Amino acid sequence: MIRRPPLSLLDLEAAPLGSRWALTAVLDALPWNSDGLIAAIAQQHDSGEVLMLAWMNRQALGETLASGQACYWSRSRRCLWRKGESSGHRQRLIEARLDCDGDAVLLLVDQQGPACHTGRPNCFYNAIRDGAVEVISSPLKDSRHDS
Amino acid sequence: MIRRPPLSLLDLEAAPLGSRWALTAVLDALPWNSDGLIAAIAQQHDSGEVLMLAWMNRQALGETLASGQACYWSRSRRCLWRKGESSGHRQRLIEARLDCDGDAVLLLVDQQGPACHTGRPNCFYNAIRDGAVEVISSPLKDSRHDS
Repeated sequence: MIRRPPLSLLDLEAAPLGSRWALTAVLDALPWNSDGLIAAIAQQHDSGEVLMLAWMNRQALGETLASGQACYWSRSRRCLWRKGESSGHRQRLIEARLDCDGDAVLLLVDQQGPACHTGRPNCFYNAIRDGAVEVISSPLKDSRHDS
Repeated sequence: MIRRPPLSLLDLEAAPLGSRWALTAVLDALPWNSDGLIAAIAQQHDSGEVLMLAWMNRQALGETLASGQACYWSRSRRCLWRKGESSGHRQRLIEARLDCDGDAVLLLVDQQGPACHTGRPNCFYNAIRDGAVEVISSPLKDSRHDS
């Protein structure tokens, strides 16, 4: 039996365009943090709008890939958070992309309704302008305020 | 002297469009993590391309706002990381936006050259497709590989 060293993200960094690795080997190589998490950025796939930042453990990422619906790890509730399960504001996965050092994943999604628990289209509504923070969007009408 | 309770991010959540607060009061209210950091997403302001995820402490965010050039906190080197200082691949800040719970900031930037230390345009080049991870972009030619 030939023993191969475990995959490193440096292998992907140096690889030519189109190179492929088994997903399991890459997930084994990710630098999950001390809580077993990586950061997950959700982006609307067609408009490019950045919707939110959340967290995923390996189980959440696996469920997201298997179900095609974004599932995060809720750090406050300490459980899987199936986005939109109660509100209907789901995120259908178009594609997931890991970053160069493997501690973040970009989720290209199709967002149903508002992404933010406040009912706003996205979570980044506090703009820093001229030494102040300004609220730049409002909750959508008739949106349920759970996420 | 009237004592007011410290600002909470819940105040911003409930506020109408156009409400403004002093930046210092908002920064005091952010839930900086145990290392004093929040996550920072850099996005190309015009194309919407998500470039990278990095981290900021209060000093890095302050310098970014003051200088108009993205400055992060390097967790590996444990120092301020003035993006592009050695490579020239700077990020000119267009606008910074805090998220609903204040543990992430979206930086709309104008990226010079590649954003990724590998020389690729952005860091999210490892796409998960059909149970495998595929490298979907190449380093730009003649790009210096420091960041």
